[in-house]
Amino acid sequence: MEEVPGALGTSASLALRLGQIVFSCASLFFMCLDLDFFSYTAFCYLVTVMGLVVPWSVTLVMVDAYSVFIKFLDHQKRILLVIIVGDWVLSCLSLAAASATASVTDLLLDVGRSYCPAKQCSRYQLSAAMAFLSWFLSFSSCLFNLWLLPSL
Amino acid sequence: MEEVPGALGTSASLALRLGQIVFSCASLFFMCLDLDFFSYTAFCYLVTVMGLVVPWSVTLVMVDAYSVFIKFLDHQKRILLVIIVGDWVLSCLSLAAASATASVTDLLLDVGRSYCPAKQCSRYQLSAAMAFLSWFLSFSSCLFNLWLLPSL
Repeated sequence: MEEVPGALGTSASLALRLGQIVFSCASLFFMCLDLDFFSYTAFCYLVTVMGLVVPWSVTLVMVDAYSVFIKFLDHQKRILLVIIVGDWVLSCLSLAAASATASVTDLLLDVGRSYCPAKQCSRYQLSAAMAFLSWFLSFSSCLFNLWLLPSL
Repeated sequence: MEEVPGALGTSASLALRLGQIVFSCASLFFMCLDLDFFSYTAFCYLVTVMGLVVPWSVTLVMVDAYSVFIKFLDHQKRILLVIIVGDWVLSCLSLAAASATASVTDLLLDVGRSYCPAKQCSRYQLSAAMAFLSWFLSFSSCLFNLWLLPSL
């Protein structure tokens, strides 16, 4: 069986998963610093999606850490398929949430200061940027695992 | 070489491409029925992206039609790679545009009737729905071609 860097159980995958955790936690942090986000559907959606990405990435970071530091795990086709589908669904949701947040923030900035003080809006923008980065990393994970799949 | 249904040059791929053309044209049509969309960045973004998806799909529908009805084209790895990357980029852009449009329309409905009369807002929602369908089809095309790639 060939080894694909970035696929499940490699150190590159561990790095990708750690990046996902960091960026999705940062996105959650910037969004939840106050409770105003509850007024906007798009922001609630972002918080929900990031709240799903964090436990998923934490689970997989533990699997990767076990595989890298303790004992290399054999790839099983069925498990890999579940991980690919999970990554794919979460990456689509993150991209949708990130772009929804970015566009709503942009609109709020246009509509006027009363809806969104400058400080708050820049936090929302930061949160969207972090969500985009998290999407990029989880999509990479998905692609690397998909590349490994036909060789199993 | 194995045959993957939905990959370049098959009749399933022809159907997928025709669907992409129909849905992206419908999305453009519902958005551009009046010229109010120019006021919102997200709507301009949707129009730009759908304006890219239409010529891309038209080109590939001609390739597929040639391959299905006249003479089967051999797959070349380099060309397939270009098509996969193009499909992938356009599908990411469509998903982002569709969710941005959907969230902005939702916000406009919340903010008040003055920004968005009921008839206009339901057109924007329809446009976003069509863009989601177009994204789904172009992502499927991308996946089918990606599945074929390792066997070349």
